[in-house]
Amino acid sequence: MCADQTKPSARSDVDPFVVMDVMREANLLEATGRSIMHLEVGQPGASTPEPVRAIANTTLTAGPLAYTDALGLPSLRARIAKYYDEHHSVEVDPERVVVTAGSSAAFILTFLSCFEAGDQVGVPEPGYPAYRNTLRALGCEPVAIPVGPETDWALTPHLIEKAEDQHGRLKGVLVASPSNPTGAMLSREQMSALVKHSEAGNRWFLSDEIYHRITYGKQDVSALEAGDDPIVINSFSKYYCMTGWRLGWAIVPERLVRPIERLAQNLFISPPTLSQIAAEQVFDETTCLDANVAVYAQNRQLLMEELPKAGITSFAPADGAFYLYADVAHLTKDSAAFCTAMLEEAGVAATPGADFDPAHGHQYVRFSFAGKTADMVEAMHRLKAWLGA
Amino acid sequence: MCADQTKPSARSDVDPFVVMDVMREANLLEATGRSIMHLEVGQPGASTPEPVRAIANTTLTAGPLAYTDALGLPSLRARIAKYYDEHHSVEVDPERVVVTAGSSAAFILTFLSCFEAGDQVGVPEPGYPAYRNTLRALGCEPVAIPVGPETDWALTPHLIEKAEDQHGRLKGVLVASPSNPTGAMLSREQMSALVKHSEAGNRWFLSDEIYHRITYGKQDVSALEAGDDPIVINSFSKYYCMTGWRLGWAIVPERLVRPIERLAQNLFISPPTLSQIAAEQVFDETTCLDANVAVYAQNRQLLMEELPKAGITSFAPADGAFYLYADVAHLTKDSAAFCTAMLEEAGVAATPGADFDPAHGHQYVRFSFAGKTADMVEAMHRLKAWLGA
Repeated sequence: MCADQTKPSARSDVDPFVVMDVMREANLLEATGRSIMHLEVGQPGASTPEPVRAIANTTLTAGPLAYTDALGLPSLRARIAKYYDEHHSVEVDPERVVVTAGSSAAFILTFLSCFEAGDQVGVPEPGYPAYRNTLRALGCEPVAIPVGPETDWALTPHLIEKAEDQHGRLKGVLVASPSNPTGAMLSREQMSALVKHSEAGNRWFLSDEIYHRITYGKQDVSALEAGDDPIVINSFSKYYCMTGWRLGWAIVPERLVRPIERLAQNLFISPPTLSQIAAEQVFDETTCLDANVAVYAQNRQLLMEELPKAGITSFAPADGAFYLYADVAHLTKDSAAFCTAMLEEAGVAATPGADFDPAHGHQYVRFSFAGKTADMVEAMHRLKAWLGA
Repeated sequence: MCADQTKPSARSDVDPFVVMDVMREANLLEATGRSIMHLEVGQPGASTPEPVRAIANTTLTAGPLAYTDALGLPSLRARIAKYYDEHHSVEVDPERVVVTAGSSAAFILTFLSCFEAGDQVGVPEPGYPAYRNTLRALGCEPVAIPVGPETDWALTPHLIEKAEDQHGRLKGVLVASPSNPTGAMLSREQMSALVKHSEAGNRWFLSDEIYHRITYGKQDVSALEAGDDPIVINSFSKYYCMTGWRLGWAIVPERLVRPIERLAQNLFISPPTLSQIAAEQVFDETTCLDANVAVYAQNRQLLMEELPKAGITSFAPADGAFYLYADVAHLTKDSAAFCTAMLEEAGVAATPGADFDPAHGHQYVRFSFAGKTADMVEAMHRLKAWLGA
C-alpha cells in the first residue's frame, strides 16, 4: 500500500449512530445463544397492520414495481395532505407533500435545499444524533442548544437567541415534538411562539413530527398549525409500524417544492414503490395502531414504576414517543460503559445518552419501551437483580 | 411575503433529471387518454421474477419488517460477494459489501466518503446526469471529460490527463460500462488501464456497473477484476428487474467500510428490509432474467433496422444496457424541442441528449428499448410516419 493512497474524506468522519452499534452488538450476543432484552431499539415491535400487508401482497402479483414520480405517487401525496385536515384541521396542498425513503431522506433533501455549506443550524440537545451527524456530513454546522430539566426539556425563543449571541446567526432551527430521547412535547403556544420567532428572524423552521400519534395524554401539535412556512418531517416507521418499508414524508413551503424535486430526481430517483402503494391504507388502520400505543402506555407505566425500585428515579417527561431518558449519574460517570456492562452482564440492551447529547449524555441512558410488555417485565427483573436492588 | 424570507439554497439549484420530467409529461398525456409509446424510461418493463415475489409475500406475513444493519443483511452481503466469484472469478470479502437504497444511495455514500467539498471528479460526457448533479449538490465539482465517436465513446488515461491539464487535479474518476446513454463498454484491457492509471495517480476510481449482464456479445468486465481498490456500484433495478424495490450495492476498499457505515447509519439508517430479504433469491433467477435480455436484444435489432428507415442512421455502440443514443443533428438543432414535438405529435416519448451531455447532447436523442417488442414496433411506425419516411 503506497503512502499517498487515497484516504476517506474528512467529512465522512462523523460520529456513528451509536444505537445502531449497540443493536448490532446485542444481535451478535443473541446469535451466540444469549437471551437479550431489547430496550435499545427505536422501533415498534408490532407488525404492519394486516390490510396494509394484504395490499402489498396483491401489488406484488400485479406487475412490475417501477419508479414513481420523484416526489411520490400522487394518490399518496393526496392522502398525506388529507391526514393534516383530519388530524390537525390544517389544509395542505398535495403539491407541497414530498414522499421520501424514510424521514432520513427527508432530512437530506430539506437540509440540502435550505442550507448552504457552512450554515449554522440550531439543534436542541439532547436530540436525535442523526440531525447533527447528517448536517455535518452535508457541510453544515449544527449548533447544540442545551435543553434540560431546568427548561422542562423544551426549546424556547430565548434559548435560540442565547445560542445566537454565543455562536452567531443560525440559518435554521430544528425541533422534535415528541422528542427523541426525552419524550418532551411542545404545547400549541410553545410551538407557535417558535414558528413566529423563526419567521420574524428569517430562519428556516424544521419540525420533526415522526413520533406524532404516540402520546400519553398531551396533544401532538403540528408546526403547520402555526402557518405554511415551517418544514414538517414525518415517517411511517413509528406510529404506523412500517419501519423496514423505509418511507417518510415532508411538507414544505411552495418555494422549496421544485428545488427538492430536482434534488430528489438526482439523489434518490423515487421512494420504494411497494411501500408507497401500501402506505395509503395505513392511515385508516388507527384502531390497530392505537392498540399498539396502548401497549406502549402500559410499558411506560411499568418502567416508571419498576426503574425507581432499581434506584433509577429521575426521567425526562416521556409525554410522547416510546423512550424513558433516565438520569444514572448516581450509578456511573460513563453511561456508555454502564450500557456495555448492562448488556453483557444482565442481557439488557439500552442506549447510552452520549449518542443524544455529547455534553451531558454520559449521565443518561435511553430505555425504549416499544417492545413487548413481557420483555419489559423481564428486563426490569434483570436490571433490579443486576443493580442489587 | 416579506422581502428577506428564507430562500432555497444555491446548492439545491441543480439541473433536473430531465428523463423524469419527460416521464411525468408522458404519463400526464397518457392520463388524458392518449396512447404513448414509452421509449424514455430507463427501466425494465418485465416483472420481478416470481420466486422473488413469492419470498416477499411470505416475508410480509411472517412478522414486522424492522431496520437492518446499516450496511445491510449479512446474508445478502455474503450473497453479493459470492456473485463476484461466480460471475467475475473475483474474491470479495462480504465485509466490503455495502447494501444501499438503490445505486442512488451508493453514489451519495461513496461521493461523501471519497471526496471533500471542492474536490474535482472526472465524469465522462455523455453520461448519467445524476452523477454531475449529485456531485454538485454534495459540494464537489464534476469535470466533464468529453467522449464521442472519435474515441469510440470510451474514457482513456490520455483523456483523463488532458482533463487534468485543463482543469487541474482530479480527486477521482467515475466510469460506467456499459454506459448510459451510449451502451459503450470497456474491454478488460481498457478497464485495467484505467484502474492502474488511477491508482498510480492517487485518484479514487468509481465503476458504475449497474448495466452489467445486459450485454449483446461483449463481456461485462468488473473493475474488481483489476484489483481491490476500485469502488464498484451496482443495482437490482436493471438486469434484476427490481426497480421500484430501491435496492443497490457498492463494493468498497476496506478503509472505506467504517466511514461509509457511519454515514449510512446517520443518513439512511438501513435499506428497505423486504427488498433485501427478497433480493437474495434473484441471483438464482438468471434463466428468467436472461430471457428479458433476449427481448432487449430483439428490440435493439428492430430499432437498429427501423430507425435508419426513418432517416436516423448514426448511433453510439449499444454493446450493453438498453439504449440507442442516436444522432439527430440532421433533423434538429434542439433535441429537447424535437422530443417534445415527437411526444405531443407522434405519441413517442424519448429523452433529449442534453440530459446526458449539456455540451453536445442537443444533437442526440436517447431511445430506450427496455419495453415490449410490440411497443417498439408501434413506436417505429409512428416515428417513420411523423418524420415522413
